[in-house]
Formats: sequence, structure tokens, C-alpha cells
Amino acid sequence: MAKLKPSIPKGTRDFSPEVVAKRNFIFDTIRSVFYKFGFQPIETPAMENLDTLTGKYGDEGDQLIFKILNSGDYLSKAGKDTLEARDSRKLTPEIAEKALRYDLTVPFARYVVMHQHEITFPFKRYQVQPVWRADRPQKGRYREFYQCDADVVGSESLLNEAEFILIYDQVLSTLGLKEFTIRINNRKILSGIAELTGKPEKMMDLTIAIDKLDKIGADGVEKELLSKGFTTEDIEKISPFLGLGGTNPEKLDYLKSSFAASETGLKGIEELETVFTYLSRFNMRQALVSLDITLARGLNYYTGAILEVRSEEVKMGSLGGGGRYDDLTGMFGLSGLTGVGISFGADRIFDVMEELKLFPPAAALGTRLLITNFDKEGELYALELLQQLRNKDVAVELYPSPVKLQKQFKYADARNIPYVLIIGPEEMETGELTLKNMKSGEQEKITAAALPAVFSNES
Amino acid sequence: MAKLKPSIPKGTRDFSPEVVAKRNFIFDTIRSVFYKFGFQPIETPAMENLDTLTGKYGDEGDQLIFKILNSGDYLSKAGKDTLEARDSRKLTPEIAEKALRYDLTVPFARYVVMHQHEITFPFKRYQVQPVWRADRPQKGRYREFYQCDADVVGSESLLNEAEFILIYDQVLSTLGLKEFTIRINNRKILSGIAELTGKPEKMMDLTIAIDKLDKIGADGVEKELLSKGFTTEDIEKISPFLGLGGTNPEKLDYLKSSFAASETGLKGIEELETVFTYLSRFNMRQALVSLDITLARGLNYYTGAILEVRSEEVKMGSLGGGGRYDDLTGMFGLSGLTGVGISFGADRIFDVMEELKLFPPAAALGTRLLITNFDKEGELYALELLQQLRNKDVAVELYPSPVKLQKQFKYADARNIPYVLIIGPEEMETGELTLKNMKSGEQEKITAAALPAVFSNES
Repeated sequence: MAKLKPSIPKGTRDFSPEVVAKRNFIFDTIRSVFYKFGFQPIETPAMENLDTLTGKYGDEGDQLIFKILNSGDYLSKAGKDTLEARDSRKLTPEIAEKALRYDLTVPFARYVVMHQHEITFPFKRYQVQPVWRADRPQKGRYREFYQCDADVVGSESLLNEAEFILIYDQVLSTLGLKEFTIRINNRKILSGIAELTGKPEKMMDLTIAIDKLDKIGADGVEKELLSKGFTTEDIEKISPFLGLGGTNPEKLDYLKSSFAASETGLKGIEELETVFTYLSRFNMRQALVSLDITLARGLNYYTGAILEVRSEEVKMGSLGGGGRYDDLTGMFGLSGLTGVGISFGADRIFDVMEELKLFPPAAALGTRLLITNFDKEGELYALELLQQLRNKDVAVELYPSPVKLQKQFKYADARNIPYVLIIGPEEMETGELTLKNMKSGEQEKITAAALPAVFSNES
Repeated sequence: MAKLKPSIPKGTRDFSPEVVAKRNFIFDTIRSVFYKFGFQPIETPAMENLDTLTGKYGDEGDQLIFKILNSGDYLSKAGKDTLEARDSRKLTPEIAEKALRYDLTVPFARYVVMHQHEITFPFKRYQVQPVWRADRPQKGRYREFYQCDADVVGSESLLNEAEFILIYDQVLSTLGLKEFTIRINNRKILSGIAELTGKPEKMMDLTIAIDKLDKIGADGVEKELLSKGFTTEDIEKISPFLGLGGTNPEKLDYLKSSFAASETGLKGIEELETVFTYLSRFNMRQALVSLDITLARGLNYYTGAILEVRSEEVKMGSLGGGGRYDDLTGMFGLSGLTGVGISFGADRIFDVMEELKLFPPAAALGTRLLITNFDKEGELYALELLQQLRNKDVAVELYPSPVKLQKQFKYADARNIPYVLIIGPEEMETGELTLKNMKSGEQEKITAAALPAVFSNES
């Protein structure tokens, strides 16, 4: 065992108790809202067969999948030519059968196909698990991070889309965010625009260009469209949509008047209107939802609604997104199953909450009471008290040895423990214990019997 | 995208909603007890640097670590000779810098050393995360499984040992187990026995042999001891300890009378007595704890107490174990830090609970109410009701489309949803909705206003 200065792989993180508590506050909120809306949790293994993942994320994505070396004498199965040519790409599938999951979507599709005969459709599942990507690490981008996904498969109803918008609202509101916008669009609107130019087959090119509007501006989008075979005449038709302002009903009116010639476009409008009707019957605050025709989201499997949510208080990119896809499980041989889903970006939500100071104070998260260890007698005296408080679900610790009181108080302070109980010889004789409130510094006398009430009244 | 029949790597598992709910019932119970005893959660990355893990689990363990292939053109750094010799073992560190964690103990030691200046000692941490081992999969043994560890480092106090015994009791009792035994021993007792034979240096050989008593019987242990250099005379001295019966105090008395000549042995007795004193002051049910001198646990880093817990109702091996170690962080250059910890085997606890039917019924775990979707009008009527119930934390779903009622009831049944609400034209007119209890089959009329009370009275 050589001694070494320990480190962790770049792009990965250790989470201290304080950070775990904050992250769990986010995850628990997301889970409890998913639960209230009837979603059920599933979990899939961290490792998938490599061929389950390969080819699902594009060439670039394939390179970012972490592959797991086969066990044992893995080189015995490697091709002689591959080794001699030092061809890493070709060797990989020969020495690595497994890989770490890259997202939760493909494992979910794999799960649905494998378990289709046990599943009752519509299947409403959620999944909160880490994923791994060999991306270049940078600020806010990690090689291991959690995804929080919810999907409904096997239901065409637009009620699902409306409920996902409610879920975004409830999760973020519960976490304390006030200013945020849930943007909605529909791929059929983008198809409608492509149809207006007479180039419906270029819908994905149009989508990918519009998706970059934030980054490269209207001029950049125009240039990209020209390079993809759209004409200046086409761009004159497209431009008004990109700059469209007004309320949601005003935007819908404009779209209706423009899409007379596009059946797909009209279908997209109808779907959006249905979602807005649901939201109004749900008494959803309409100001939170904004129809945004430039919302494209690059993923090519979306076919209907597209959703995205952003904070308006902190510039941070999207806090979550999703949409409807009509053929997610086709890649595993089960076609015709429609689905719609959303995802939360827990790391970004964490950063927004830190910046807005929305987390509960650290003192609310851990041990409530430290009992000091004065001497052997006081220690034994304390044990029954520990049991009583824990039986009432109070998180309480006895300092494990009779070191100087100052050191014990320092421990309570560092751990953000809000109360300290002192049991010295005098306290034991009178039965009047000394309770110190660490925040106010106040001390009071209290009997053991009265102690549990301090903590039941706390919240 | 080739279509393929999907599968998952052998030794890994998908967890369905029902199983996730049951597993979370176990994990949440463990976490809540850890919390009450003042433990704080940390999380470490799934991937560690390979050299953090190598050499910590013995030669066999090193082979069972899953290594992660470097990204990019990993062969460019591989040695020419290694490739030509097809030497898998030698090539591994040249093409894999990272690996999946094999347990939570080594990453915890790494964490303590890396973060020693932020940590306030004694550091009481718990960690519930998956680990990965390339073991041959078999019944009850998986390649991905969760460990649930709690440790205290930086405190010599035997109060910690006593509290870990309480934690075993509280977790298993809360989960509904009734007949279980927490066995305790002390490595110093094993040292004492080795000293009595005049071969203190053979303590680990003795420990490893005794550890196999369950598997190979007393005869087998004797054979192994002979092969390790103990004499038949030694074995005559050792044997009485292996067959020792009686109550805990009777066993302690026997040990005391035997260990007059062994300082280490006497120290072990003293430590055990201190733990028993704490337990009695905690009002712990003494029958649960059994001093077992044959409890050895093979791990060579234990130096003091050894703990293990087993069900007496279901034959299943140990449900958890642990002990005190005096130099866990020495491997990373920080010596002199003592610690004590325990672990729960969640998969085995799951199997015991299944066999004893201790899990809450599935109907208690998911959606409480399904509102049927009768027609467009009924659907819109239901939306406000959905909101009201969810605002009261009731998990409720509206079936997303107006398919045949029979299909909707089938859905509720398959999902174990205990109540179904019917909103047809008559119900909307009178405001008297129809609520069906799916278990009893009874139907009653109920107003929307009275509905939330059904679910608040439920538990």
C-alpha cells in the first residue's frame, strides 16, 4: 500500500454533509411533486450493455460514453490487426461490453421494451439517478451529474403536457423561486413554418438554426439558413415568426392567420390551444407560461410539444426541458408508443437557489441538540435522556468523551447544532439541566421531562 | 440505429416501481435512524482514480474492480511491449485511469484525508450509495448493489460501539423484524487467545480460521490451524473458547479467569464490559446482544470491537456488520485516526422482509385516487378537484383520456390505487360524485368538498 496524496477524477465531486442536505432538499421536492401527480419511481443499473447506448447520441455522443473494460484477460479476444494498428475506436467494442449510462432516456426506452408485458399503460414513471459523460469539465459542467426525469408513455392526451407545466410550477414555487418562465412551443409550428417556405423536408435544419438564436442572434440564424439551402425569399417569410411579440392569444391569432395553408401548422396551434385550456381550468397563473416560437431544442426525437423553464432572476440557462416524442422505443423494436416527458437540471437549480439564498439555514438540517459530556457520571445520566429524545424523533448526540467543554461547544458550533445541554454535578443533583440556545446565546434551566417540548415546538 | 432485443449486463437489475418503493422503505428507515443518532450524509463519486482503489482489497479484490477505459485515443499511451505481449494485467493501468468504487470504506478514507481541514472531529458520517464488483453473479450476489455505511472517526469512546448496537436494534425493529441477534466480539479477545498459545504473531491466522467455523465446522478449523503452524497442544487451549456457552456475564467471567496472563485479552474484556454497561443504561433489551468469541470477520483492519447482526427467523447470513479500526486513513498518509463503523446489507434485509411479509401493502405506497375520465366535460370538471387534492398532498391522477370505464378500472387495479372517483353527467349535475373503494368494492356518494377528508383520515 503506497501512500499517496488522494484526489478524485476531474469533473467529479465529493459532496459534504451540508451540500448533500441541500441537494436532497431539491431531489425530495421534485420526487414529492412527481408522486402527487401519480408518477412512480423506477431505477436502472449504472452500467448498460455498450450496444444499448451506441448510436443513440450521434457520433460525438458515442465518444463521450464512458466504457467499462471487460474483466479478466480481456486482450485475449482482441483482434490482432486492431492491436497492431493501435486503432482505439475499433478496439473499444472488442474489450468493453459495458458502459456507464449517458442519460436516463435511452435506459428508460430499454426498460419499457424489456418490461412491456408487466407494465400497465399509460406508464407514468420518474427516475432520479446519476449519469456520466466524458465531456471536457468546465464551470457548471460535470462528468457525473444527476438527471431527474418524468415521462408518460402510452397516452396521446395533451392533459399530460398541461400537468408537466403544473409540475414545473409546483416544484420551482415550492423551492422558493418566484420569477421564472415556462416556455412552450410545438414542433408542428416549426413544421408549419418550413411548409410555408415550400421546404417541409428542411424542418430539422430550420429547427437546429432557430435553436441557436440565443447564441448567434438573428443574423447568425439567417446565415445558417442560407447555408442550408433556404433562399432570401424564404427568410423573409421566416423572420416575422422569430421576432413575434405580444400575449399568448395574440401570438396564436397571428399563427392562425399565417398557417391557413399548412395543415401541420394548424394542428400545432390546436394542440397549443388545448394545453392552454387545461391550464386555465387548472387555475394556473397564465403569466408563467409563454408561447415562444423560437423554442426549438435541438433533440431530433421531439414531434409535438416542446417545453423549457428558465429563471428570470438569475441568468443560468434552462433549469429543465422536455417535450413529446412519437417513437422513443422504436430503436429497440417497439414502435407506435407515444410519450411525453420533462427533466429537471438539479445542478443549475442548486446554483440559482444558492444565489437567491433560498436554502433553509444549515441549523435546520442536522442534529438538533448536543448533550455535553462532563464526566463519567454525567455521561451515564445522559443515556436515558438520549433514548427518550430519539424515541420522539429528535436528532440528538452526546459528545462521546469528557473533553474540555470549550471543545464540545466548538463542535456544536461547527456542526450548526442549535441547542447544547449541560449536565454537570449540580444539574444532576437538582434535576434542573442547563440548556443553551447557540444562536441567541441565552441559557435556561429545564427539566428532562420538559426537554422534548423544546423540539416539538421548534418548527 | 440497428434494432436489437434489449438486455442488461448480467449481475445488474432493473427495479420496478413496486421494488423501488420497498427498497426506499428500507433506505429511508436506515437514514432516519442514522440522522437521529447525529450522523450526517456525504456522497462520493462513482468513479475513483484507479490508484486510489488498487492494493486495498488484496490481489483478488483488485481483479474484481471495474476499470473505466480512458477517453479518446487511449491506445496512443499504451506500451508497445505490453500490447505485443497481450498482457491484459499490465495494459490495464496504461489505458484505464479510473474505476468504479468497490466499497464505501476506501472512498470514505480518501474523503477524510482530502477534506481533513474542513472536517470537525469526531466526524459522524453516513453514506448510502451503490458499489460495483466484477464478482461471478449468483443468487443474492450482484455486480451493482447498495451499501449503507455509518462511521465515527476521531473518537476512541466506546459509547460509539454501544450506539451502533442501538442503531442495529432500532433499524431492524422499525422495519418489523422481531427475532434477530446482534453478535459482538473484540479483536483483542482473539489476540488474547493467540497469546495464550504463545503465538501472538499468528493472531490473523487464528482469526481467519475461526471466521470459517460456520462453513467448515470445528474439525475444519482445527485442520486449518494445524496447517498454519499451531500445535495440537495449542488447539487444546483454543478449543474451549470456540465452544463457549452461557450468558454474556458467564462468558466474560470465563474469559477473565483465562486471560490473567494476557494484557491484551484483559483489555478486550474491559472494552466489552464498558459497552455492556452503556447498553444497560440505554435500557437496551440485553437478550438481543450476544457475546460470540467465534465472531471474527475476516477483514484485517479491525482492531477492537467486531459486530454482526443476523435474523433468527430466516436463514440468510449476516444482515450487517462492522467494527473498530485504528488506522483506516493511514493508507492515504494520515495516521493515528481511530474509527468505528457499521454497514447494513440492504439486499439481504429486503429478502428477509419479503419472506416475513413485512412490507406495507402496495396500495399504501402509490397514487391514492384515480379520477375516471368520462367525457370532455367531466375531464375539465375534474381539473380543479385535482389541484385541490394535490394542494393537500394527496397523490391523485385523472385518467388522461375518455376510454371505456372498464379499462380505467383495470388501470387502477393494476396500479393498486385504492380509490376511484367517477364523474359522469349525473354527478356533475347533482354535485354528488361516486367514490369506489377498490378493496371492499363499496361505492358511496360524496361531494367534492368532503373528498380530501377521506384521505386525511386514511392513515
